[in-house]
Amino acid sequence: MAEFMYSSREHKFILKEWLDSEKILNFDSFKDTFDLDDIDMILDQALLAAKEVAAPVNIDADRIGCELKDGKVTTPPSFKKLYKFMCENGYGPSLHDPDDENRLPEIIKYAVLEYFGAAIPSFDYPGMSGGVARLIHSFGTENQKKVFLPKMYSGEWGGTMALTEPHCGSDVGEITSTAYPTDTPGVYKIKGTKCFITAGDHDLTDNIVHLMLARIEGAAPGTKGISLFIVPKIWVNEDGSLGEPNDVLSVGLEHKLGMKGSATVMLDFGSEDICRGYLVGNPPDENNRAEGMAQMFQMMNEARQGVGSGAVNIAQAAYNYSLQYAKERIQGKAITNPRGPRVRIVEHEDVRRMLMFQKSIIEACRAMVFKTAYLLDLINDSPDKEEKKWADGLVGINTPIIKAYPTDMVWQTVAEAIQIHGGYGFIEEYPVAQYARDSKILSLYEGTNFIQSLDLVGRKWSQNNGQLFVSWLEEINETIGKNKNLEGFEREYEIMTKAKDSYRQMLNEFTSKIQEDIRLMTLFSTRILHATAMLWGGSLLLEHAAIAVEKLKELNSNHADYSFYNGKVHSAKFYIRNIVPDLFKICEVIKDGDTSTLDIPEEAF
Amino acid sequence: MAEFMYSSREHKFILKEWLDSEKILNFDSFKDTFDLDDIDMILDQALLAAKEVAAPVNIDADRIGCELKDGKVTTPPSFKKLYKFMCENGYGPSLHDPDDENRLPEIIKYAVLEYFGAAIPSFDYPGMSGGVARLIHSFGTENQKKVFLPKMYSGEWGGTMALTEPHCGSDVGEITSTAYPTDTPGVYKIKGTKCFITAGDHDLTDNIVHLMLARIEGAAPGTKGISLFIVPKIWVNEDGSLGEPNDVLSVGLEHKLGMKGSATVMLDFGSEDICRGYLVGNPPDENNRAEGMAQMFQMMNEARQGVGSGAVNIAQAAYNYSLQYAKERIQGKAITNPRGPRVRIVEHEDVRRMLMFQKSIIEACRAMVFKTAYLLDLINDSPDKEEKKWADGLVGINTPIIKAYPTDMVWQTVAEAIQIHGGYGFIEEYPVAQYARDSKILSLYEGTNFIQSLDLVGRKWSQNNGQLFVSWLEEINETIGKNKNLEGFEREYEIMTKAKDSYRQMLNEFTSKIQEDIRLMTLFSTRILHATAMLWGGSLLLEHAAIAVEKLKELNSNHADYSFYNGKVHSAKFYIRNIVPDLFKICEVIKDGDTSTLDIPEEAF
Repeated sequence: MAEFMYSSREHKFILKEWLDSEKILNFDSFKDTFDLDDIDMILDQALLAAKEVAAPVNIDADRIGCELKDGKVTTPPSFKKLYKFMCENGYGPSLHDPDDENRLPEIIKYAVLEYFGAAIPSFDYPGMSGGVARLIHSFGTENQKKVFLPKMYSGEWGGTMALTEPHCGSDVGEITSTAYPTDTPGVYKIKGTKCFITAGDHDLTDNIVHLMLARIEGAAPGTKGISLFIVPKIWVNEDGSLGEPNDVLSVGLEHKLGMKGSATVMLDFGSEDICRGYLVGNPPDENNRAEGMAQMFQMMNEARQGVGSGAVNIAQAAYNYSLQYAKERIQGKAITNPRGPRVRIVEHEDVRRMLMFQKSIIEACRAMVFKTAYLLDLINDSPDKEEKKWADGLVGINTPIIKAYPTDMVWQTVAEAIQIHGGYGFIEEYPVAQYARDSKILSLYEGTNFIQSLDLVGRKWSQNNGQLFVSWLEEINETIGKNKNLEGFEREYEIMTKAKDSYRQMLNEFTSKIQEDIRLMTLFSTRILHATAMLWGGSLLLEHAAIAVEKLKELNSNHADYSFYNGKVHSAKFYIRNIVPDLFKICEVIKDGDTSTLDIPEEAF
Repeated sequence: MAEFMYSSREHKFILKEWLDSEKILNFDSFKDTFDLDDIDMILDQALLAAKEVAAPVNIDADRIGCELKDGKVTTPPSFKKLYKFMCENGYGPSLHDPDDENRLPEIIKYAVLEYFGAAIPSFDYPGMSGGVARLIHSFGTENQKKVFLPKMYSGEWGGTMALTEPHCGSDVGEITSTAYPTDTPGVYKIKGTKCFITAGDHDLTDNIVHLMLARIEGAAPGTKGISLFIVPKIWVNEDGSLGEPNDVLSVGLEHKLGMKGSATVMLDFGSEDICRGYLVGNPPDENNRAEGMAQMFQMMNEARQGVGSGAVNIAQAAYNYSLQYAKERIQGKAITNPRGPRVRIVEHEDVRRMLMFQKSIIEACRAMVFKTAYLLDLINDSPDKEEKKWADGLVGINTPIIKAYPTDMVWQTVAEAIQIHGGYGFIEEYPVAQYARDSKILSLYEGTNFIQSLDLVGRKWSQNNGQLFVSWLEEINETIGKNKNLEGFEREYEIMTKAKDSYRQMLNEFTSKIQEDIRLMTLFSTRILHATAMLWGGSLLLEHAAIAVEKLKELNSNHADYSFYNGKVHSAKFYIRNIVPDLFKICEVIKDGDTSTLDIPEEAF
């Protein structure tokens, strides 16, 4: 088994050379705790921990996996030590605590999470607890916060999001889980079945706090009548003491393609009629409208951003393994020297193409993710209200893109990592196959990638009469424009200029086309999301290249960093000249407007 | 678990309405055994057997898989019955027997194999025996044929191709397995280790006949000094009687991403110094050149064609499951009726897009495979020598394309089948995840897909001074030209015309470019192979559409076949207007000629 390798160099570039991290670190929340010089240490320590403590457990995650026996889910034995380590060393749920004195800004947090995600993609227990706690933090009563948060941020108690039911995934409004008022205000009797609950049951914590969506009897149908409940596995009294088991049964454990270390559980709530939950926020108003969906969306948006980051870390880990293999494996001769010696396959053009494909897409995706993390810091901590609002608008556009594009692309990039391994890529002793399997959930959960594309094209495009999206595009135009005279990037500038023009034209034409036939929107939205991502990704890599070009001028070619910047230059070139042209194809296809997909009768499939 | 569904309708279209099967069936080899009317029955029987006998075993293939214990490999218990059934009912190795009185033409054989391949992709035991037997049939002595063929075609004995060694996959010329002459002419002592041997050991047959590549001591280095040996697991005397175990040890069984029913074995030959093999053909000549590679290539080419067909059957099976799911799963509302009832997801435009993507690519790939099968029939059985030679040239071009393009695309089409299933696609209870896992080997074995692209661009393009490829293209041009006035296909004709022009222009420019820098060939060959496949696939689907358009004119819309032809029309439209435009992108990218992949220093990856 090859060794887990990962680098923090790109993150240091992003945080210290690209994004204005100094601005973030000067916000009140951070100015006494961190400065720019701390970044290296924080990242390197996290990476070391991910590498030495988390990565070795990844094989157990997959080979041992989780098990459901006698109504209890167990995780691999090595998980307990890792969980404890992460909780005790600041890599656990406390990472998500907005009140933590040493809270990391999002830009640093995303790097830390990327390392652990790459080391063991399926270990989502700390993140679930943290995300759930954050939601209680935002919407819970003072007493709920007092009772639940300390135990959840410390990792003593776990957390889940219990949304999905067997008959409704994308269709959350159709849930049938129901809550009935009891004599105690704020406490409801709960009944329902939830499936696909990540970390739904396990043996890492003393208790598990389910944040569950259910409809209070009599509330409005659809999403607007749904409320959110805190439903602990073991009942928690108002004073924080533990009560009896709360009638939450683990009735199924999914056997999945990947992410086998993550327990995906089907839960029965209230099968013995004694399950209770605390309502979060207010009961339905006089129109029977409830608050649950809006509350849940805070966590949903965070989860979507996190899933995009998860695709980046899987893609990067697989790339690293394929690079390592390519540098060691000797096979074939150079095409330029067919009678010469056998060479390492990294010298073969097609292998290098597969490496560049991965590298450039990963860097484009990571740039999108961190750009978004930067905006999240502005939303969270900027003292400027206008800036917060502006950032919030942009994040709304970024979120579906960073959820969907990286998670579609990772299936292709990991396939290239496998391909580089030749036949060995198909063998589970090499880690790339597991990364391929693990990756496939990412395009499916937290809203399928189509749902994301609908969010982008159906909502974000037209938000504020389209002004928001226009300003989003304007920023890309500016980035491209700034690099008009970037040395050695004349051709890339030309392609990106053409790309923004093509995109703009498509946007205008398409916006009026869908007035005539709304089905065109859902027919093309997936492809439009990809085109949008390529335009954005290309512009961000161009921005990176501009920094790298300057650095290369300053550095001697034997400087340790020279290769890194050189790599950035080539990634930008490859992405813009080999990937971005897909955008032209997509715009052409949309313009062409083939409707065979709509016209074909169902029985002709 | 959803039911295995598969249709023979498309094959009947291909065999009875598209290809000139009558011509094949009128050849001497078939004219007394089959006529056109038999096709339906043969296909339907095979499909029924695949569905009822083979498909139910597929779950055991994956969940039980193969096991190596005490030096013996066992297969799932249910395999024995299936193997026996296939051998006894004409679906076993005898399918490949050129002397079988009831031999099927390739065009029918490919359909039969597709059904069994779809039902259980990893069950490659009968095919391996048949392919190996065919090779002995072509190159063995009369006595070797007499001794080995009956037992192999009947399925009593298995067969393998033992090529790969741990240090050389693509690099066959570097093998170190060695053969030493013994006192018995034609019998050699064998020493070597082979890995990734498909069906390398198992419990389905009394004996296994390894066709093994090794270098006779003193023969030339590289591929030209390699010979082929028949190395039975249990020694077979010249009179056909069984001798002692032949010192072939199963020393490892691979744990793979998929195809778990197929035993992939590492074999040690001669660890106790008593392994023997029969030389196939002649010993090395006075220049120390041997015949093994040329012999092996007969089987290799067949295997490559078969792999392409394997991708089609996996893609089709996954498509069928996703279609079935889409027709049953209710989720969300129609975009045109947001306040209306919930609908089955097959009504959603994006789901239909994913279905069309799969359907059109599958049909394009199947058309390529069957066009090639038709040419194989001409090679095998045409009385016209010129025609045989012409067909042989075309098959040489088709082979790398049908090996690589379908096996690259299946990873994407199965991903769409998974995506249609939503979260359930990630659950192994639904069969699509297994098909995704099974499919990944196809781009890797029998020559990686890059090797195929190199064969196409580096060899086949320039064969006969490029005349062969020009005539191959000419056939495509003619197909497109014939459909200039096809009603309702004006736009498709336009795109295909532009596609052939773009391809031709790229070909001309690129051919001179690589004179200056040969590395451009290997940099772009993978993409060129895809562009070639899209041009070809688009033209074949246009041809199909032309037939379908005529049929639709004749049929009443409630005729059972109406939907089928309607589906063909829409597949052609979708493929040409949504997939073929990738060709323009590829041609543009090649013209642009970005060399970042070549320029980037290794340390910058």
